[in-house]
Amino acid sequence: MVTSPVVNTYPLSSYTFGTKEPKMEKDTSVADRLARMKLNYLKEGMRTSVEAILLVQEHNHPHILLLQIGNTFCKLPGGRLKPGENEIEGLKRKLSSKLGANSPSLQPNWQIGECVAIWWRPNFETIMYPYCPPHITKPKECKKLFLVHLSEREYFAVPKNLKLLAVPLFELYDNVQRYGPVISTIPQQLSRFHFNMIHA
Amino acid sequence: MVTSPVVNTYPLSSYTFGTKEPKMEKDTSVADRLARMKLNYLKEGMRTSVEAILLVQEHNHPHILLLQIGNTFCKLPGGRLKPGENEIEGLKRKLSSKLGANSPSLQPNWQIGECVAIWWRPNFETIMYPYCPPHITKPKECKKLFLVHLSEREYFAVPKNLKLLAVPLFELYDNVQRYGPVISTIPQQLSRFHFNMIHA
Repeated sequence: MVTSPVVNTYPLSSYTFGTKEPKMEKDTSVADRLARMKLNYLKEGMRTSVEAILLVQEHNHPHILLLQIGNTFCKLPGGRLKPGENEIEGLKRKLSSKLGANSPSLQPNWQIGECVAIWWRPNFETIMYPYCPPHITKPKECKKLFLVHLSEREYFAVPKNLKLLAVPLFELYDNVQRYGPVISTIPQQLSRFHFNMIHA
Repeated sequence: MVTSPVVNTYPLSSYTFGTKEPKMEKDTSVADRLARMKLNYLKEGMRTSVEAILLVQEHNHPHILLLQIGNTFCKLPGGRLKPGENEIEGLKRKLSSKLGANSPSLQPNWQIGECVAIWWRPNFETIMYPYCPPHITKPKECKKLFLVHLSEREYFAVPKNLKLLAVPLFELYDNVQRYGPVISTIPQQLSRFHFNMIHA
């Protein structure tokens, strides 16, 4: 009997949210971002990025924490690894930078769990695929999404220029227009998990 | 370090395909199918179905085996469990019925692996979701997709009224029009696996 892995989720209200100094985006346009990606590739080779799926529950339905920049664009917390950096350590570093308090003693207990998706960028373009396309021998980026198991209570410090949203799976599902291909298929990738929704 | 699970895949040419007696669909229309589903629900409760993702490789890219009915409709091999039947045993039974030779000694070695997706049908309608929608307390069907690890050589017997196709992941991806929501997002659900493509 194969049983689905179980993920405990806690109510959004059991977490505390504060603010901290702004974290500005490094690029102000998609063209700038792709140009910087190309420059980094020439220096360091394929970019590896790691992103976190942080789950909470509301009304008995799983929600994902997304960082919103401006009024529309949403992203998962995470970022680029340093060359040679361990994926798990790198994701913890990025999560503390994006969502941790400035004090090291107030860092959430980031328990990095299952890798749920891997996306490949074949060229210095925005399009990514959930496989390395045939005939692509030198992909430009590999992006890995990890489930992060949150403890029952945590304090998050959200950069002042960003908003942290709890978005229900039913809002993400089949909504590529709003969330893009990577975030909008997270519900399908999480479907094999059983969510054990713990009430306060 | 979390490493992706590894799946060995073998060339399509290492498998042998024969034919056997036709396996007719039980229903001739979607309306008939939903009506039969409702009748079974009243007798047996929620329907649980299990389906198999059988992987082969061609040109260094993973392909999935799909059964084609007529000229357009494709489905994964599998089917409905009997009430109380074990998922793994039930999937093996369904695979032997759909793709096994009539002789018990020629059955493929079905090694049922990871559950990669779970879909829910809230009502007696065609639409399914990769989560049980909020406020749905009595879903009508739960469909589970399992990876099946094929051995290097196998003999498959394909019912005469069906075609068995090896469809590349890049053909399935983002192709909901042709394959529907369940099959077209298999590439995203398999993205976390590393395919070890073994050549003959």
